[in-house]
Amino acid sequence: MKSIKTAILIGAGNVATHLGMALKANGIEVLQVYSRTGKSAAALAQKLDCYCTTDIKKILPHADLYIFSVADGALDYLLNSFDIKNAFVVHTSGSLNMNIFAGHNVRYGVLYPLQTFSKKVKISFSNIPLCIEAQDDEHLKQLMKLARRVSRKVEHITSPQREALHIAAVFACNFTNHMFAIADELLQKEKLSFDLLYPLLDETLRKVKTHKPADVQTGPAIREDKVIMQKHLDMLSTLPAYQKIYNFISRSIRESKDKNKKS
Amino acid sequence: MKSIKTAILIGAGNVATHLGMALKANGIEVLQVYSRTGKSAAALAQKLDCYCTTDIKKILPHADLYIFSVADGALDYLLNSFDIKNAFVVHTSGSLNMNIFAGHNVRYGVLYPLQTFSKKVKISFSNIPLCIEAQDDEHLKQLMKLARRVSRKVEHITSPQREALHIAAVFACNFTNHMFAIADELLQKEKLSFDLLYPLLDETLRKVKTHKPADVQTGPAIREDKVIMQKHLDMLSTLPAYQKIYNFISRSIRESKDKNKKS
Repeated sequence: MKSIKTAILIGAGNVATHLGMALKANGIEVLQVYSRTGKSAAALAQKLDCYCTTDIKKILPHADLYIFSVADGALDYLLNSFDIKNAFVVHTSGSLNMNIFAGHNVRYGVLYPLQTFSKKVKISFSNIPLCIEAQDDEHLKQLMKLARRVSRKVEHITSPQREALHIAAVFACNFTNHMFAIADELLQKEKLSFDLLYPLLDETLRKVKTHKPADVQTGPAIREDKVIMQKHLDMLSTLPAYQKIYNFISRSIRESKDKNKKS
Repeated sequence: MKSIKTAILIGAGNVATHLGMALKANGIEVLQVYSRTGKSAAALAQKLDCYCTTDIKKILPHADLYIFSVADGALDYLLNSFDIKNAFVVHTSGSLNMNIFAGHNVRYGVLYPLQTFSKKVKISFSNIPLCIEAQDDEHLKQLMKLARRVSRKVEHITSPQREALHIAAVFACNFTNHMFAIADELLQKEKLSFDLLYPLLDETLRKVKTHKPADVQTGPAIREDKVIMQKHLDMLSTLPAYQKIYNFISRSIRESKDKNKKS
Protein backbone atom coordinates (compact mmCIF):
# COMPACT_ATOMS: atom_id res chain seq x y z
CA MET A 1 0.00 0.00 0.00
CA LYS A 2 1.22 3.45 -0.94
CA SER A 3 1.72 5.81 2.01
CA ILE A 4 0.66 9.43 1.82
CA LYS A 5 3.78 11.50 2.48
CA THR A 6 2.95 14.82 0.83
CA ALA A 7 -0.21 16.92 0.63
CA ILE A 8 -1.45 20.15 -0.90
CA LEU A 9 -4.12 22.26 0.74
CA ILE A 10 -6.78 23.86 -1.42
CA GLY A 11 -8.23 26.45 0.95
CA ALA A 12 -6.67 28.40 3.81
CA GLY A 13 -9.54 28.80 6.28
CA ASN A 14 -9.89 27.52 9.86
CA VAL A 15 -10.08 23.82 8.97
CA ALA A 16 -7.22 23.99 6.43
CA THR A 17 -5.06 25.84 8.94
CA HIS A 18 -5.64 23.46 11.86
CA LEU A 19 -5.37 20.37 9.63
CA GLY A 20 -2.26 21.65 7.82
CA MET A 21 -0.48 22.34 11.12
CA ALA A 22 -1.40 18.87 12.41
CA LEU A 23 -0.15 17.18 9.23
CA LYS A 24 3.14 19.06 9.35
CA ALA A 25 3.58 18.28 13.05
CA ASN A 26 3.11 14.59 12.29
CA GLY A 27 5.57 14.25 9.43
CA ILE A 28 3.34 14.81 6.40
CA GLU A 29 4.94 17.43 4.18
CA VAL A 30 2.54 20.11 2.98
CA LEU A 31 3.95 21.21 -0.39
CA GLN A 32 1.67 24.11 -1.25
CA VAL A 33 -1.38 26.12 -0.18
CA TYR A 34 -3.94 27.42 -2.66
CA SER A 35 -6.40 30.18 -1.80
CA ARG A 36 -8.15 32.64 -4.08
CA THR A 37 -7.09 35.26 -1.50
CA GLY A 38 -3.33 35.82 -1.78
CA LYS A 39 -3.02 37.06 1.78
CA SER A 40 -4.64 33.94 3.33
CA ALA A 41 -2.60 31.61 1.11
CA ALA A 42 0.64 33.39 2.03
CA ALA A 43 -0.16 33.46 5.75
CA LEU A 44 -0.81 29.71 5.95
CA ALA A 45 2.11 28.89 3.59
CA GLN A 46 4.41 30.78 5.92
CA LYS A 47 3.19 28.77 8.91
CA LEU A 48 3.70 25.54 6.96
CA ASP A 49 6.93 26.67 5.32
CA CYS A 50 5.71 25.85 1.81
CA TYR A 51 4.70 27.36 -1.55
CA CYS A 52 1.45 29.23 -2.12
CA THR A 53 -0.63 30.17 -5.13
CA THR A 54 -3.88 31.92 -6.03
CA ASP A 55 -4.05 30.21 -9.42
CA ILE A 56 -5.76 26.83 -9.43
CA LYS A 57 -3.90 25.98 -12.65
CA LYS A 58 -0.57 26.33 -10.85
CA ILE A 59 -1.20 23.68 -8.25
CA LEU A 60 1.77 21.31 -8.22
CA PRO A 61 1.04 17.94 -9.87
CA HIS A 62 3.05 15.52 -7.74
CA ALA A 63 1.41 15.53 -4.26
CA ASP A 64 0.16 12.26 -2.76
CA LEU A 65 -3.05 13.94 -1.57
CA TYR A 66 -5.02 17.07 -2.44
CA ILE A 67 -7.18 18.34 0.42
CA PHE A 68 -10.08 20.58 -0.62
CA SER A 69 -11.04 22.55 2.45
CA VAL A 70 -13.29 25.24 1.01
CA ALA A 71 -16.90 26.41 1.31
CA ASP A 72 -19.29 23.74 0.01
CA GLY A 73 -20.49 26.06 -2.74
CA ALA A 74 -16.95 26.63 -4.05
CA LEU A 75 -15.93 22.98 -4.38
CA ASP A 76 -17.68 22.17 -7.65
CA TYR A 77 -16.33 25.28 -9.34
CA LEU A 78 -12.77 24.57 -8.14
CA LEU A 79 -12.97 20.94 -9.26
CA ASN A 80 -13.90 22.05 -12.78
CA SER A 81 -10.65 24.02 -12.95
CA PHE A 82 -8.53 21.40 -11.20
CA ASP A 83 -6.84 19.37 -13.92
CA ILE A 84 -4.33 17.07 -12.25
CA LYS A 85 -5.39 13.75 -13.71
CA ASN A 86 -5.74 10.77 -11.44
CA ALA A 87 -4.88 12.84 -8.33
CA PHE A 88 -6.05 11.52 -4.94
CA VAL A 89 -8.44 14.19 -3.67
CA VAL A 90 -10.50 14.57 -0.48
CA HIS A 91 -12.81 17.22 0.89
CA THR A 92 -13.26 18.10 4.56
CA SER A 93 -16.97 18.96 4.48
CA GLY A 94 -19.55 17.58 6.87
CA SER A 95 -22.39 17.98 4.45
CA LEU A 96 -21.13 17.19 0.93
CA ASN A 97 -21.64 13.69 -0.42
CA MET A 98 -18.45 11.97 -1.52
CA ASN A 99 -19.88 11.44 -5.00
CA ILE A 100 -19.38 15.14 -5.80
CA PHE A 101 -15.97 13.91 -7.05
CA ALA A 102 -17.38 11.26 -9.40
CA GLY A 103 -16.77 12.01 -13.09
CA HIS A 104 -13.85 14.32 -12.34
CA ASN A 105 -11.08 11.92 -13.38
CA VAL A 106 -9.67 11.74 -9.86
CA ARG A 107 -9.43 9.14 -7.09
CA TYR A 108 -11.35 10.35 -4.08
CA GLY A 109 -12.42 10.27 -0.48
CA VAL A 110 -13.48 12.41 2.47
CA LEU A 111 -11.56 13.52 5.56
CA TYR A 112 -14.01 15.29 7.89
CA PRO A 113 -12.73 16.52 11.24
CA LEU A 114 -15.69 16.55 13.66
CA GLN A 115 -14.81 19.67 15.60
CA THR A 116 -15.53 23.38 15.87
CA PHE A 117 -12.64 25.57 14.78
CA SER A 118 -12.29 29.23 15.69
CA LYS A 119 -9.41 31.37 14.55
CA LYS A 120 -9.06 32.67 18.09
CA VAL A 121 -8.92 29.31 19.85
CA LYS A 122 -6.03 26.82 19.83
CA ILE A 123 -6.91 23.16 19.77
CA SER A 124 -5.20 19.78 20.08
CA PHE A 125 -5.85 17.85 16.89
CA SER A 126 -5.12 14.42 18.35
CA ASN A 127 -8.48 14.35 20.20
CA ILE A 128 -10.57 15.24 17.17
CA PRO A 129 -12.57 12.41 15.61
CA LEU A 130 -11.63 12.14 11.93
CA CYS A 131 -14.45 10.75 9.81
CA ILE A 132 -13.10 9.17 6.67
CA GLU A 133 -14.63 7.64 3.57
CA ALA A 134 -13.13 6.63 0.23
CA GLN A 135 -14.12 5.31 -3.19
CA ASP A 136 -12.65 1.87 -2.46
CA ASP A 137 -10.85 -0.17 0.21
CA GLU A 138 -7.38 0.68 -1.00
CA HIS A 139 -7.92 4.43 -0.72
CA LEU A 140 -9.76 4.00 2.55
CA LYS A 141 -6.73 2.23 4.00
CA GLN A 142 -4.40 4.98 2.79
CA LEU A 143 -6.60 7.65 4.37
CA MET A 144 -6.97 5.59 7.55
CA LYS A 145 -3.19 5.38 7.91
CA LEU A 146 -2.81 9.11 7.34
CA ALA A 147 -5.65 10.00 9.70
CA ARG A 148 -4.22 7.82 12.48
CA ARG A 149 -1.02 9.84 12.37
CA VAL A 150 -2.86 13.01 13.36
CA SER A 151 -5.75 11.73 15.49
CA ARG A 152 -6.38 9.02 18.05
CA LYS A 153 -9.97 8.64 16.91
CA VAL A 154 -10.56 7.69 13.28
CA GLU A 155 -13.92 6.42 12.09
CA HIS A 156 -15.16 5.07 8.78
CA ILE A 157 -18.33 7.09 8.20
CA THR A 158 -20.54 6.91 5.10
CA SER A 159 -21.87 10.03 3.39
CA PRO A 160 -25.42 9.72 4.84
CA GLN A 161 -23.93 9.14 8.30
CA ARG A 162 -21.68 12.17 7.89
CA GLU A 163 -24.69 14.31 6.98
CA ALA A 164 -26.43 13.17 10.17
CA LEU A 165 -23.28 13.89 12.19
CA HIS A 166 -23.07 17.35 10.71
CA ILE A 167 -26.63 18.38 11.53
CA ALA A 168 -26.31 16.76 14.97
CA ALA A 169 -23.19 18.84 15.52
CA VAL A 170 -25.09 22.00 14.58
CA PHE A 171 -27.61 21.28 17.35
CA ALA A 172 -25.09 20.03 19.92
CA CYS A 173 -22.41 22.65 19.33
CA ASN A 174 -23.54 25.70 17.33
CA PHE A 175 -27.03 25.93 18.83
CA THR A 176 -25.74 25.11 22.30
CA ASN A 177 -23.26 27.95 21.97
CA HIS A 178 -26.14 30.27 21.09
CA MET A 179 -28.00 29.12 24.22
CA PHE A 180 -24.89 30.11 26.18
CA ALA A 181 -24.79 33.48 24.37
CA ILE A 182 -28.43 34.16 25.29
CA ALA A 183 -27.75 33.18 28.92
CA ASP A 184 -24.73 35.48 28.96
CA GLU A 185 -26.81 38.38 27.62
CA LEU A 186 -29.58 37.84 30.18
CA LEU A 187 -27.04 37.72 33.02
CA GLN A 188 -25.27 40.85 31.83
CA LYS A 189 -28.47 42.86 32.12
CA GLU A 190 -28.42 42.07 35.84
CA LYS A 191 -24.66 42.64 36.11
CA LEU A 192 -23.98 38.97 36.74
CA SER A 193 -21.04 37.06 35.35
CA PHE A 194 -21.48 34.06 33.04
CA ASP A 195 -18.98 32.09 35.10
CA LEU A 196 -21.62 31.60 37.82
CA LEU A 197 -23.08 29.05 35.41
CA TYR A 198 -19.88 26.99 34.97
CA PRO A 199 -20.75 24.30 37.55
CA LEU A 200 -24.17 23.97 35.92
CA LEU A 201 -22.63 23.68 32.44
CA ASP A 202 -20.11 21.09 33.66
CA GLU A 203 -22.88 19.06 35.24
CA THR A 204 -25.10 19.33 32.13
CA LEU A 205 -22.28 17.88 30.04
CA ARG A 206 -21.26 15.28 32.63
CA LYS A 207 -24.83 13.97 32.79
CA VAL A 208 -25.17 13.37 29.04
CA LYS A 209 -21.90 11.45 29.02
CA THR A 210 -23.31 8.88 31.41
CA HIS A 211 -27.02 8.96 30.53
CA LYS A 212 -29.17 9.27 27.45
CA PRO A 213 -29.81 13.04 27.06
CA ALA A 214 -33.59 12.63 26.85
CA ASP A 215 -33.55 10.67 30.15
CA VAL A 216 -31.92 13.47 32.16
CA GLN A 217 -33.97 16.41 30.88
CA THR A 218 -34.79 18.83 33.71
CA GLY A 219 -36.44 22.25 33.97
CA PRO A 220 -39.88 23.85 33.83
CA ALA A 221 -40.83 22.44 30.40
CA ILE A 222 -40.41 18.76 31.30
CA ARG A 223 -42.12 19.40 34.68
CA GLU A 224 -44.87 21.23 32.79
CA ASP A 225 -44.54 24.10 35.25
CA LYS A 226 -46.73 26.57 33.40
CA VAL A 227 -46.43 29.30 36.05
CA ILE A 228 -42.66 29.54 35.68
CA MET A 229 -42.79 29.22 31.90
CA GLN A 230 -45.29 32.09 31.64
CA LYS A 231 -43.12 34.19 33.95
CA HIS A 232 -40.08 33.52 31.77
CA LEU A 233 -42.01 34.36 28.60
CA ASP A 234 -43.09 37.64 30.23
CA MET A 235 -39.48 38.39 31.17
CA LEU A 236 -38.53 37.90 27.52
CA SER A 237 -41.26 40.19 26.16
CA THR A 238 -38.72 42.78 25.00
CA LEU A 239 -36.64 40.06 23.30
CA PRO A 240 -39.10 38.45 20.86
CA ALA A 241 -36.46 36.25 19.16
CA TYR A 242 -35.56 34.65 22.49
CA GLN A 243 -39.21 34.40 23.45
CA LYS A 244 -39.89 32.36 20.30
CA ILE A 245 -36.90 30.13 21.00
CA TYR A 246 -38.09 29.64 24.60
CA ASN A 247 -41.54 28.73 23.38
CA PHE A 248 -40.57 26.29 20.65
CA ILE A 249 -37.88 24.48 22.62
CA SER A 250 -40.20 24.15 25.64
CA ARG A 251 -42.92 22.70 23.41
CA SER A 252 -40.45 20.32 21.83
CA ILE A 253 -39.23 19.16 25.26
CA ARG A 254 -42.85 18.51 26.20
CA GLU A 255 -43.52 16.60 22.96
CA SER A 256 -40.36 14.51 23.46
CA LYS A 257 -41.61 13.55 26.89
CA ASP A 258 -44.83 12.20 25.38
CA LYS A 259 -42.82 10.43 22.66
CA ASN A 260 -40.53 8.78 25.22
CA LYS A 261 -43.52 7.62 27.24
CA LYS A 262 -44.99 5.91 24.16
CA SER A 263 -41.76 4.20 23.09
CA MET B 1 -24.38 36.04 65.84
CA LYS B 2 -26.55 32.98 66.21
CA SER B 3 -25.35 29.92 64.31
CA ILE B 4 -27.77 27.66 62.48
CA LYS B 5 -27.32 24.19 63.93
CA THR B 6 -30.64 22.53 63.15
CA ALA B 7 -32.95 22.59 60.15
CA ILE B 8 -36.28 21.19 59.02
CA LEU B 9 -37.01 20.38 55.38
CA ILE B 10 -40.42 21.21 53.98
CA GLY B 11 -40.43 19.18 50.79
CA ALA B 12 -38.73 15.92 49.86
CA GLY B 13 -37.95 16.33 46.15
CA ASN B 14 -34.60 16.41 44.33
CA VAL B 15 -33.39 19.71 45.79
CA ALA B 16 -34.51 18.87 49.35
CA THR B 17 -32.83 15.48 49.12
CA HIS B 18 -29.48 16.73 47.83
CA LEU B 19 -29.49 19.73 50.18
CA GLY B 20 -30.55 17.66 53.19
CA MET B 21 -27.76 15.15 52.60
CA ALA B 22 -25.21 17.96 52.24
CA LEU B 23 -26.38 19.64 55.47
CA LYS B 24 -26.20 16.38 57.40
CA ALA B 25 -22.74 15.60 56.00
CA ASN B 26 -21.54 19.01 57.17
CA GLY B 27 -22.79 18.88 60.73
CA ILE B 28 -26.18 20.58 60.46
CA GLU B 29 -28.78 18.38 62.11
CA VAL B 30 -31.92 17.87 60.05
CA LEU B 31 -34.66 17.34 62.64
CA GLN B 32 -37.63 16.53 60.43
CA VAL B 33 -38.88 16.19 56.87
CA TYR B 34 -42.35 17.29 55.80
CA SER B 35 -43.94 16.16 52.56
CA ARG B 36 -47.61 15.85 51.66
CA THR B 37 -46.64 12.41 50.30
CA GLY B 38 -45.93 10.08 53.20
CA LYS B 39 -43.69 7.82 51.15
CA SER B 40 -41.38 10.64 50.02
CA ALA B 41 -41.19 12.10 53.51
CA ALA B 42 -40.36 8.70 55.02
CA ALA B 43 -37.74 7.89 52.36
CA LEU B 44 -35.83 11.13 52.89
CA ALA B 45 -36.25 11.00 56.70
CA GLN B 46 -34.68 7.56 56.66
CA LYS B 47 -31.67 8.85 54.72
CA LEU B 48 -31.32 11.74 57.16
CA ASP B 49 -32.13 9.67 60.23
CA CYS B 50 -34.84 12.08 61.42
CA TYR B 51 -38.59 12.46 61.96
CA CYS B 52 -41.10 12.88 59.18
CA THR B 53 -44.64 14.17 58.87
CA THR B 54 -47.33 14.79 56.28
CA ASP B 55 -49.13 17.29 58.52
CA ILE B 56 -47.90 20.87 58.22
CA LYS B 57 -49.36 21.57 61.67
CA LYS B 58 -47.03 18.97 63.20
CA ILE B 59 -43.81 20.58 62.09
CA LEU B 60 -41.54 20.89 65.14
CA PRO B 61 -41.28 24.46 66.49
CA HIS B 62 -37.66 24.63 67.66
CA ALA B 63 -35.49 24.38 64.49
CA ASP B 64 -33.01 27.16 63.71
CA LEU B 65 -34.02 27.13 60.02
CA TYR B 66 -37.03 25.97 57.99
CA ILE B 67 -36.18 25.20 54.37
CA PHE B 68 -39.14 25.27 51.98
CA SER B 69 -38.12 23.26 48.95
CA VAL B 70 -41.41 22.77 47.15
CA ALA B 71 -42.98 23.66 43.81
CA ASP B 72 -43.37 27.43 43.43
CA GLY B 73 -47.16 27.10 43.28
CA ALA B 74 -47.30 25.21 46.60
CA LEU B 75 -45.28 27.65 48.70
CA ASP B 76 -47.98 30.24 49.34
CA TYR B 77 -50.49 27.60 50.36
CA LEU B 78 -48.01 25.93 52.72
CA LEU B 79 -47.02 29.26 54.27
CA ASN B 80 -50.64 29.97 55.10
CA SER B 81 -50.79 26.76 57.14
CA PHE B 82 -47.32 27.17 58.66
CA ASP B 83 -47.80 28.74 62.08
CA ILE B 84 -44.43 28.70 63.85
CA LYS B 85 -44.16 32.33 64.83
CA ASN B 86 -40.92 34.16 64.23
CA ALA B 87 -39.33 31.10 62.58
CA PHE B 88 -36.37 31.69 60.25
CA VAL B 89 -37.58 30.42 56.86
CA VAL B 90 -35.98 30.21 53.42
CA HIS B 91 -37.08 28.88 50.06
CA THR B 92 -34.83 27.28 47.44
CA SER B 93 -36.59 28.58 44.33
CA GLY B 94 -34.83 30.28 41.44
CA SER B 95 -37.88 32.20 40.38
CA LEU B 96 -39.78 33.29 43.51
CA ASN B 97 -39.16 36.74 44.92
CA MET B 98 -38.03 36.77 48.54
CA ASN B 99 -40.95 39.04 49.45
CA ILE B 100 -43.37 36.11 49.17
CA PHE B 101 -42.54 35.68 52.87
CA ALA B 102 -43.44 39.26 53.85
CA GLY B 103 -46.52 39.52 56.09
CA HIS B 104 -46.21 35.90 57.28
CA ASN B 105 -44.83 36.68 60.75
CA VAL B 106 -41.52 34.97 59.99
CA ARG B 107 -37.90 36.03 59.50
CA TYR B 108 -36.82 35.12 55.99
CA GLY B 109 -34.32 34.61 53.24
CA VAL B 110 -33.52 32.54 50.15
CA LEU B 111 -31.06 29.68 49.64
CA TYR B 112 -30.99 28.84 45.93
CA PRO B 113 -28.60 26.13 44.72
CA LEU B 114 -27.73 26.90 41.10
CA GLN B 115 -27.57 23.38 39.77
CA THR B 116 -29.56 20.75 37.91
CA PHE B 117 -30.62 17.83 40.08
CA SER B 118 -31.74 14.48 38.73
CA LYS B 119 -32.81 11.63 40.93
CA LYS B 120 -30.61 9.29 38.89
CA VAL B 121 -27.42 11.34 39.10
CA LYS B 122 -25.16 11.76 42.13
CA ILE B 123 -23.56 15.14 42.63
CA SER B 124 -20.97 16.81 44.83
CA PHE B 125 -22.65 19.69 46.65
CA SER B 126 -19.45 21.55 47.49
CA ASN B 127 -19.06 22.80 43.90
CA ILE B 128 -22.59 24.14 43.61
CA PRO B 129 -22.97 27.93 43.76
CA LEU B 130 -25.39 28.79 46.56
CA CYS B 131 -27.22 32.04 45.91
CA ILE B 132 -28.40 33.57 49.16
CA GLU B 133 -30.51 36.57 50.09
CA ALA B 134 -32.08 37.63 53.39
CA GLN B 135 -34.36 40.28 54.87
CA ASP B 136 -31.48 41.99 56.69
CA ASP B 137 -27.73 41.82 57.25
CA GLU B 138 -27.96 39.71 60.37
CA HIS B 139 -29.93 36.94 58.67
CA LEU B 140 -27.75 37.22 55.56
CA LYS B 141 -24.69 36.58 57.71
CA GLN B 142 -26.31 33.55 59.34
CA LEU B 143 -27.21 32.10 55.95
CA MET B 144 -23.78 32.93 54.59
CA LYS B 145 -22.14 30.99 57.41
CA LEU B 146 -24.44 28.00 56.89
CA ALA B 147 -24.02 28.06 53.10
CA ARG B 148 -20.23 28.14 53.38
CA ARG B 149 -20.32 24.91 55.35
CA VAL B 150 -21.84 23.04 52.40
CA SER B 151 -20.45 24.90 49.37
CA ARG B 152 -17.21 26.57 48.32
CA LYS B 153 -19.08 29.11 46.24
CA VAL B 154 -21.61 31.32 48.03
CA GLU B 155 -22.98 34.48 46.44
CA HIS B 156 -25.26 37.22 47.68
CA ILE B 157 -27.82 37.48 44.88
CA THR B 158 -30.88 39.78 44.89
CA SER B 159 -34.31 38.54 43.81
CA PRO B 160 -34.19 40.21 40.34
CA GLN B 161 -30.69 38.80 39.83
CA ARG B 162 -31.88 35.35 40.85
CA GLU B 163 -34.71 35.52 38.33
CA ALA B 164 -32.18 36.35 35.61
CA LEU B 165 -29.96 33.48 36.76
CA HIS B 166 -32.88 31.10 36.66
CA ILE B 167 -33.95 31.92 33.11
CA ALA B 168 -30.29 31.95 32.00
CA ALA B 169 -29.96 28.47 33.52
CA VAL B 170 -32.98 27.28 31.54
CA PHE B 171 -31.26 28.33 28.30
CA ALA B 172 -27.77 27.17 29.28
CA CYS B 173 -28.73 23.87 30.88
CA ASN B 174 -32.28 22.68 30.11
CA PHE B 175 -32.39 23.88 26.50
CA THR B 176 -28.80 22.77 25.90
CA ASN B 177 -29.76 19.30 27.13
CA HIS B 178 -32.61 19.26 24.63
CA MET B 179 -30.17 20.18 21.84
CA PHE B 180 -28.15 17.14 22.91
CA ALA B 181 -31.30 14.99 22.91
CA ILE B 182 -32.13 16.10 19.36
CA ALA B 183 -28.55 15.39 18.24
CA ASP B 184 -28.75 11.95 19.87
CA GLU B 185 -32.01 11.19 18.05
CA LEU B 186 -30.63 12.30 14.66
CA LEU B 187 -27.51 10.16 15.15
CA GLN B 188 -29.52 7.12 16.21
CA LYS B 189 -31.39 7.15 12.92
CA GLU B 190 -28.03 6.58 11.20
CA LYS B 191 -26.89 4.05 13.83
CA LEU B 192 -24.25 6.41 15.16
CA SER B 193 -23.36 6.80 18.81
CA PHE B 194 -23.74 10.12 20.63
CA ASP B 195 -20.25 9.69 22.10
CA LEU B 196 -18.73 10.62 18.73
CA LEU B 197 -19.75 14.17 19.69
CA TYR B 198 -17.96 14.22 23.07
CA PRO B 199 -14.81 16.00 21.84
CA LEU B 200 -17.02 18.58 20.15
CA LEU B 201 -19.09 19.08 23.31
CA ASP B 202 -15.94 19.40 25.43
CA GLU B 203 -14.53 21.99 23.07
CA THR B 204 -17.83 23.91 22.91
CA LEU B 205 -17.77 24.21 26.69
CA ARG B 206 -14.04 24.93 26.91
CA LYS B 207 -14.40 27.80 24.44
CA VAL B 208 -17.12 29.62 26.37
CA LYS B 209 -15.05 29.40 29.54
CA THR B 210 -12.29 31.44 27.95
CA HIS B 211 -14.23 33.62 25.51
CA LYS B 212 -17.52 35.46 25.38
CA PRO B 213 -20.02 32.94 23.91
CA ALA B 214 -21.21 35.34 21.19
CA ASP B 215 -17.59 35.83 20.07
CA VAL B 216 -16.95 32.15 19.38
CA GLN B 217 -20.18 31.31 17.56
CA THR B 218 -19.51 28.96 14.63
CA GLY B 219 -21.67 27.05 12.14
CA PRO B 220 -23.76 27.65 9.02
CA ALA B 221 -26.02 30.33 10.58
CA ILE B 222 -23.23 32.72 11.55
CA ARG B 223 -21.48 32.10 8.20
CA GLU B 224 -24.84 32.69 6.50
CA ASP B 225 -24.31 29.49 4.53
CA LYS B 226 -27.79 29.26 3.04
CA VAL B 227 -27.05 26.13 1.00
CA ILE B 228 -26.22 24.06 4.07
CA MET B 229 -29.06 25.56 6.13
CA GLN B 230 -31.59 24.70 3.40
CA LYS B 231 -30.18 21.18 3.20
CA HIS B 232 -30.54 20.76 6.97
CA LEU B 233 -34.11 22.11 6.90
CA ASP B 234 -34.91 19.58 4.15
CA MET B 235 -33.39 16.78 6.24
CA LEU B 236 -35.68 17.82 9.11
CA SER B 237 -38.84 17.87 6.98
CA THR B 238 -40.28 14.84 8.79
CA LEU B 239 -39.50 16.42 12.18
CA PRO B 240 -41.37 19.75 12.07
CA ALA B 241 -40.68 20.62 15.73
CA TYR B 242 -36.93 20.34 15.16
CA GLN B 243 -37.24 22.20 11.85
CA LYS B 244 -38.85 25.14 13.65
CA ILE B 245 -36.15 25.11 16.31
CA TYR B 246 -33.46 25.00 13.60
CA ASN B 247 -35.06 27.93 11.82
CA PHE B 248 -35.59 30.18 14.83
CA ILE B 249 -32.20 29.58 16.43
CA SER B 250 -30.43 30.13 13.10
CA ARG B 251 -32.30 33.40 12.63
CA SER B 252 -31.46 34.47 16.15
CA ILE B 253 -27.76 33.68 15.62
CA ARG B 254 -27.87 35.79 12.49
CA GLU B 255 -29.60 38.67 14.30
CA SER B 256 -27.09 38.51 17.16
CA LYS B 257 -24.29 38.86 14.62
CA ASP B 258 -25.82 42.10 13.35
CA LYS B 259 -26.35 43.28 16.92
CA ASN B 260 -22.72 42.57 17.86
CA LYS B 261 -21.51 44.44 14.80
CA LYS B 262 -23.47 47.52 15.83
CA SER B 263 -22.33 47.49 19.45
